[in-house]
Amino acid sequence: MKKKVLVIGGVACGPKAASRIKRLDPDTEVTILEKGELLSYAGCGLPYYVSGQVKNDDDLMSTPTGVVRDPDFFKMVKDIHVNNHTQAESIDRENKVVKAVDLSTGKAVEYEYDTLVLSVGSQFKKPPFPGIDLTGVHFLQTVEDAKGIRDESGPLEGKNAVVIGAGLIGLEATEALKAQGMNITMIEMADQAMGNLFDHEMVFHLHNELKRNGVVLKTLETVREIKGNDLSNVTSVVTDKGEYPADLVLVAVGVTPNTQLAKQAGLEIGETGAIRVDSSMRTSDPNIYAGGDCVENVSVVTGKPIFAPMGSTANKHGRIIGDNVCGIPSEFKGVCGTAICRVFGINVSRTGLTEKQAKEMGYDCITVLNPFPDKPHFLNEAKLIIIKLVVDKATHRLLGAQIVGPGDVAKRMEVAVANISSGSKVTDIAQYDLAYAPPFSPAMDNIITAANIAENKLYDRGSSLSPVEVQAKIENGDDFIFLDVRSPKEYEQMRIEDPRIKLIPLGKLRNCLLELPMDKEIIAFCKISLRGYEAERILTGAGFKNVKYMDGGVVCWPYKKFVLS
Amino acid sequence: MKKKVLVIGGVACGPKAASRIKRLDPDTEVTILEKGELLSYAGCGLPYYVSGQVKNDDDLMSTPTGVVRDPDFFKMVKDIHVNNHTQAESIDRENKVVKAVDLSTGKAVEYEYDTLVLSVGSQFKKPPFPGIDLTGVHFLQTVEDAKGIRDESGPLEGKNAVVIGAGLIGLEATEALKAQGMNITMIEMADQAMGNLFDHEMVFHLHNELKRNGVVLKTLETVREIKGNDLSNVTSVVTDKGEYPADLVLVAVGVTPNTQLAKQAGLEIGETGAIRVDSSMRTSDPNIYAGGDCVENVSVVTGKPIFAPMGSTANKHGRIIGDNVCGIPSEFKGVCGTAICRVFGINVSRTGLTEKQAKEMGYDCITVLNPFPDKPHFLNEAKLIIIKLVVDKATHRLLGAQIVGPGDVAKRMEVAVANISSGSKVTDIAQYDLAYAPPFSPAMDNIITAANIAENKLYDRGSSLSPVEVQAKIENGDDFIFLDVRSPKEYEQMRIEDPRIKLIPLGKLRNCLLELPMDKEIIAFCKISLRGYEAERILTGAGFKNVKYMDGGVVCWPYKKFVLS
Repeated sequence: MKKKVLVIGGVACGPKAASRIKRLDPDTEVTILEKGELLSYAGCGLPYYVSGQVKNDDDLMSTPTGVVRDPDFFKMVKDIHVNNHTQAESIDRENKVVKAVDLSTGKAVEYEYDTLVLSVGSQFKKPPFPGIDLTGVHFLQTVEDAKGIRDESGPLEGKNAVVIGAGLIGLEATEALKAQGMNITMIEMADQAMGNLFDHEMVFHLHNELKRNGVVLKTLETVREIKGNDLSNVTSVVTDKGEYPADLVLVAVGVTPNTQLAKQAGLEIGETGAIRVDSSMRTSDPNIYAGGDCVENVSVVTGKPIFAPMGSTANKHGRIIGDNVCGIPSEFKGVCGTAICRVFGINVSRTGLTEKQAKEMGYDCITVLNPFPDKPHFLNEAKLIIIKLVVDKATHRLLGAQIVGPGDVAKRMEVAVANISSGSKVTDIAQYDLAYAPPFSPAMDNIITAANIAENKLYDRGSSLSPVEVQAKIENGDDFIFLDVRSPKEYEQMRIEDPRIKLIPLGKLRNCLLELPMDKEIIAFCKISLRGYEAERILTGAGFKNVKYMDGGVVCWPYKKFVLS
Repeated sequence: MKKKVLVIGGVACGPKAASRIKRLDPDTEVTILEKGELLSYAGCGLPYYVSGQVKNDDDLMSTPTGVVRDPDFFKMVKDIHVNNHTQAESIDRENKVVKAVDLSTGKAVEYEYDTLVLSVGSQFKKPPFPGIDLTGVHFLQTVEDAKGIRDESGPLEGKNAVVIGAGLIGLEATEALKAQGMNITMIEMADQAMGNLFDHEMVFHLHNELKRNGVVLKTLETVREIKGNDLSNVTSVVTDKGEYPADLVLVAVGVTPNTQLAKQAGLEIGETGAIRVDSSMRTSDPNIYAGGDCVENVSVVTGKPIFAPMGSTANKHGRIIGDNVCGIPSEFKGVCGTAICRVFGINVSRTGLTEKQAKEMGYDCITVLNPFPDKPHFLNEAKLIIIKLVVDKATHRLLGAQIVGPGDVAKRMEVAVANISSGSKVTDIAQYDLAYAPPFSPAMDNIITAANIAENKLYDRGSSLSPVEVQAKIENGDDFIFLDVRSPKEYEQMRIEDPRIKLIPLGKLRNCLLELPMDKEIIAFCKISLRGYEAERILTGAGFKNVKYMDGGVVCWPYKKFVLS
């Protein structure tokens, strides 16, 4: 008798596992149950449908050559049976039967399995705000949601949108709604966008970009209520601090793994609240695999469980499940927690731990801030990117990276991810023979320079403070010389305004040593702190006792500064 | 007494080493000798000066904030003595003295050293063609060369240029001259551009791009003579096959390391003809270091010596020399042989060994061809990239990668380089938690899919032939079914025209099995061979005995094909 594999869930991990199984072992009978109409749609593409960049919703569900992945497609091309509009209700593990409902007829149906694959995904959190069910309040999880926003809301231009939640989806949705000409207010409970994905001084650049594009971001505000009119159409959002007119509300306060089925079946749930699986993606029942957004992963960095739902990870899971189902031992090594997002003219990307997270977890770490153009400055197309690295002092391994800026952040992030994943030291990056030509990078790629700075810090070659540390000293009223070594012209255009500031251009510093006290603390900086570092070396070399440079210079200074407009 | 470090050569490696030494050990006396006027100029930026993208030559020699790196700059900022216009003539190793000539006065000068650093670079090959010294015959090595082309040749628009040599520099120069509106003929001795940097089926896409942009590439042609008029101005280039009118000739037939000084001093020269150094960049004389274009490197892939001059490598050398001079043991681990180039609308990048090189060196390898959009197909900005991997069967390590296409090739190349450099297996790439969002990559990044294809091949999950192997079978008159599983519409637009072709769309294949003989060889393909692979799996699963798919599909077919224009 043919082996029966039943897959619950028709997006990302499920179809991937099903397809892999049929390719490896065509004799297996593979069935997919999907509660919705649609299969294998590109959930991550939804914001680009809302913005209008993706013209037709079919494009989100078709292969690159335009074939829509409907049940016929799966049957004819892959010999996979797809039952859509079929909701799985419970798992009878003893008898290996899944009880389901055919949503189009309402009839109960049963499916036997030898092996079961759960790829039931995650769900947008629906907070219990009064008014959450008003017309005009949207989520952005399904193609229907996206169509509801773009096609059923009427013309959006000039209208007011309130986006609740400034995480990845909230930001992508904001950009999409802005592309439709809406006025946008974002409401975020935390003190910054992207919650714990970025350290404060890195997310600062994203906040500025939102402001530049006319998006109002309200942090540390909690939504109390969504108000509507007599027709049950949304009219405003009320927070603990104000009320914001709204023709449309988008709620993106995070996702939660779908674990009802797993819980009902008594499968083990992990500490993150998602389904626990071993490295072969097997649940606590050896006949049941699970993958995609409904499971928890292990962090490659910390070795600890992490809930990090990602379409890219779901696809990896699917392949590994397919292998294991077909008797090919295959292990998933975990995730780094990588994320990337384009918001207007800025790209923001991160992996691993932030400095805050690393410190909370007890790591003794150094950090690097490297702002630099992504290409030689003599090319007009060169754009700034800022790299922050968090490095474990004990092992010299990269704990995390954050890269933001208008330039090419993705290329450098991939290097960081590959470095972390291969178990190498951060200093190994400095030796990578990365692809160099002016249209692609400076002769020393930004991530190589960052690794070199990390090496200097790990071996105490130069002494530095982060902007956060300098600000703490300022707030503490510490007495030090805040030495700006840029030119007067640069100073005119942008500067930190503080009584401790002293301006001595680097080229004159060696002739001005007598102007500086030998024993007082001196913190040097420039635009990006390349010259700041040089100044620290000059002064320390000249016998000054307490000199540091400030990481990242005035470009990375996230606090008040004067900018000539 | 202060330790004296003497650096010969003021570009890339030399100033880098000098600066690093002063930062680590301010008490050292560091002197740079440079025969030219200019220091630390961006040699790789010269084509972008020729094209007009870089407006002023100063931009090539200045820091990102616009300070020109002249001797005063080095003195004031870095406390480094620079003697430009000073040509080193010989090294007296016994007495640790360099004899030089001050080119502005003609006087002999001597410089003592404790440690000597040679960063004397490489030189463009000047082939002994008759007419090589005519006015209008250019090289592109120095800022003066670049100014000679752009500023001293008069208006270039509409004039004829002949570029001799279709390597990296020749191609960059071609793009630059085309930007100035010139008509260009490239003459190349080998049978393809980029010599041994790319396999034939990959460089094919570059050849097409040159054609699309009106550049005539003549391969397998040898220059016999450059002709001029009475005023000694160049007029044409004569090859073994024709004569090409030329108002300007650019000669880019490769570079050769500058080893005269090293040879005179009796330093060991490596088998590649460049100066031999150990992993700490020390020559055969322990008091003399060397780095940059004048030395040979070790290949990270093969462990063998390689001459691969690159500005990025020179900068790495400089830092490592600086460390070692200051007593910090530091090793250079070698290069992969990475290169990247933008030519009109296509990016071409490579690292490690080509398939041809790998086979010549005796590696038993598999290859992968993965053509796919660099972003989800539903985004308009998605562009094709084609990845070729060469993988060692014995170790599962990546021996080389070639990536070409209009899309983002650099990001994927960095992943390949990081993977090779960390000593990981190619299959590890499939697990990297790369940064995913639609503006940056498909959910399964192209390099991850390529690694998955490699895994299938290494474990014999699916059977395939490369386009080169299929073409050999065709030329050999082999009898097989060349099964195109695309739609009739796709077939109309682009197809391989061969009597063996049979068209059965993938969706119909399972119903058409009786149309195909069970024992005859079948080679399936589609646009990119995702469906081709699926077809191979279907047929093999159905009991067909001799089925393969063709790597890369019709997109990667480098031979004659019909394309609807």
